[in-house]
Amino acid sequence: MTETTPGWLSPDELEYARDRMPILYVEAVPVRVDDSGEVTSIGLLLRIGSDGTVSRNLVSGRVLHHERVRDALLRHLEKDLGPMALPQVPASLQPFTVAEYFPTQGITPFHDPRQHAVALAYIVPVTGDCRPRQDALDLVWFSPQEASEALVLSEMPGGQGVLLRQALAHVGCLS
Amino acid sequence: MTETTPGWLSPDELEYARDRMPILYVEAVPVRVDDSGEVTSIGLLLRIGSDGTVSRNLVSGRVLHHERVRDALLRHLEKDLGPMALPQVPASLQPFTVAEYFPTQGITPFHDPRQHAVALAYIVPVTGDCRPRQDALDLVWFSPQEASEALVLSEMPGGQGVLLRQALAHVGCLS
Amino acid sequence: MTETTPGWLSPDELEYARDRMPILYVEAVPVRVDDSGEVTSIGLLLRIGSDGTVSRNLVSGRVLHHERVRDALLRHLEKDLGPMALPQVPASLQPFTVAEYFPTQGITPFHDPRQHAVALAYIVPVTGDCRPRQDALDLVWFSPQEASEALVLSEMPGGQGVLLRQALAHVGCLS
Amino acid sequence: MTETTPGWLSPDELEYARDRMPILYVEAVPVRVDDSGEVTSIGLLLRIGSDGTVSRNLVSGRVLHHERVRDALLRHLEKDLGPMALPQVPASLQPFTVAEYFPTQGITPFHDPRQHAVALAYIVPVTGDCRPRQDALDLVWFSPQEASEALVLSEMPGGQGVLLRQALAHVGCLS
Repeated sequence: MTETTPGWLSPDELEYARDRMPILYVEAVPVRVDDSGEVTSIGLLLRIGSDGTVSRNLVSGRVLHHERVRDALLRHLEKDLGPMALPQVPASLQPFTVAEYFPTQGITPFHDPRQHAVALAYIVPVTGDCRPRQDALDLVWFSPQEASEALVLSEMPGGQGVLLRQALAHVGCLS
Repeated sequence: MTETTPGWLSPDELEYARDRMPILYVEAVPVRVDDSGEVTSIGLLLRIGSDGTVSRNLVSGRVLHHERVRDALLRHLEKDLGPMALPQVPASLQPFTVAEYFPTQGITPFHDPRQHAVALAYIVPVTGDCRPRQDALDLVWFSPQEASEALVLSEMPGGQGVLLRQALAHVGCLS
Repeated sequence: MTETTPGWLSPDELEYARDRMPILYVEAVPVRVDDSGEVTSIGLLLRIGSDGTVSRNLVSGRVLHHERVRDALLRHLEKDLGPMALPQVPASLQPFTVAEYFPTQGITPFHDPRQHAVALAYIVPVTGDCRPRQDALDLVWFSPQEASEALVLSEMPGGQGVLLRQALAHVGCLS
Repeated sequence: MTETTPGWLSPDELEYARDRMPILYVEAVPVRVDDSGEVTSIGLLLRIGSDGTVSRNLVSGRVLHHERVRDALLRHLEKDLGPMALPQVPASLQPFTVAEYFPTQGITPFHDPRQHAVALAYIVPVTGDCRPRQDALDLVWFSPQEASEALVLSEMPGGQGVLLRQALAHVGCLS
């Protein structure tokens, strides 16, 4: 992908926009469900920063110009989980919450030093085989119990641990 | 099934309860979705009454004593669509709406002469092969456009046409 | 109120129904909000049991035969918070979650030894003066932070602490 | 307000952004409710275009850089309904739907020739006195029945009539 693709911004253009507007994001919480729809595990991306710090992340990314929210979801799910994950993008666009990431800390539980990002957040069951691509090392599955433990949450940057807990609450798995 | 099965009522017991309490129901709108989750068609059960009248119905039924809402959904989906329908029961129990059927007409858009029923309503994508069982003749798939037309809606008894339109609105397919 | 009022059950009738059917409930989380709608505090009813144990509760109660969900909400809010609480019953009946209380422990996080109850749960801003009536001693207001602390949650019976946390998650106040 | 205010864009900057990114909007459906929360009327802004055409609109506007969604809602409600409208901004940021306006027609039911806008849509009860300001002539209240009639819907540009019907469906007033 280069900046000539419609909907993509050059680094300079993105920088320019980030200083002036909220940037629209989608975030997906990948889950495994049983036959009755109950969540049995939650998938978190594992990344190692350039300084060696471990971070765990939800699937997340920008919505591009002229791209539907559901196409953005599908694109980021494929980018982060690989082409065989078989995600079930929800039939309704009603998100379970809206997460507001501010460059200033303390306005909301969410923080992104680069920008003011507003993310539509969805629960997405995946039934296929997940193979992280891009910069993620691995996708690790946690039980709802494990996912809500302090250690995991502390490894999720920018308040994504709060968003994960909101997702667990929404699916009735917050203990 | 007989009245000795836990959670099942004899006809007399059900009659007794219906005169005294709201009865909890689940209702499911079976849909086909494309890869991006967008609804491409809606399935309606076709029934012919003893007097020859055609009616079209959503999947619907009671929640039994000691039965989880998601198990009731699964049971009624299997009962109405057959064992190969592969329904995707939602991960969250938050319904898109609650439909209140009163024995008296005009209190809400919903009416059930037998009882006061309160239904939790869900959109349920199905990916398998639907074979109506029980008393339904057929499951007919409609495009969102067709499903919102007056003729179809007029064949849905008790206000289920209103519920169908609420479902179409929720998935962004109300034209 | 006596058992001759339509919609009310005698103790025997209620006992009978509770052994045979799920009982429909509504639950309300009373909150104070600021001008922008953000929750600033959460109200919990304080009750002292016959054995001296302290319990904290959400507003909760049955939906009666031939009663609308929103009228049941209003009735229980008035019963528990007094006639001057000025509750803002939501315009949409879509609950933020459905809580399933089973007489058997461990099926869901919710437990009610008396019955299988299914509760539609709503956030309800109140702007007036709350004066608990009936058996509650007091209505105590907590900040979102305080409300999510372990001590408070441990005083909420039957899993209502989980429901409170789901409510806090839904309004973006789960820390 | 001038372009030097943080979060505001000059006309050129806005033009630049609109060509490159989805622009985040909020939309509010102002309603009157009765004590039980049921919607009794819906408020639509009446505008007369420079060519004399009548249009009816929901409350709508951009979210600015570093502005919370709920503050953007409050600002646009005050801008469009005046300072005495006393809007009840929802406690939860979960919108009833997300409306995607594309500059190209036919991708979704929503169309905005100027831009790709993604709007978080909320139902907002107002209890005070509404005095349209800015370019709106008047705020006209309709019953749910009137609001869903074809004439009114046909006067709502860009698919806002569809969004209004989604709102009516969400509050159980779609007939």
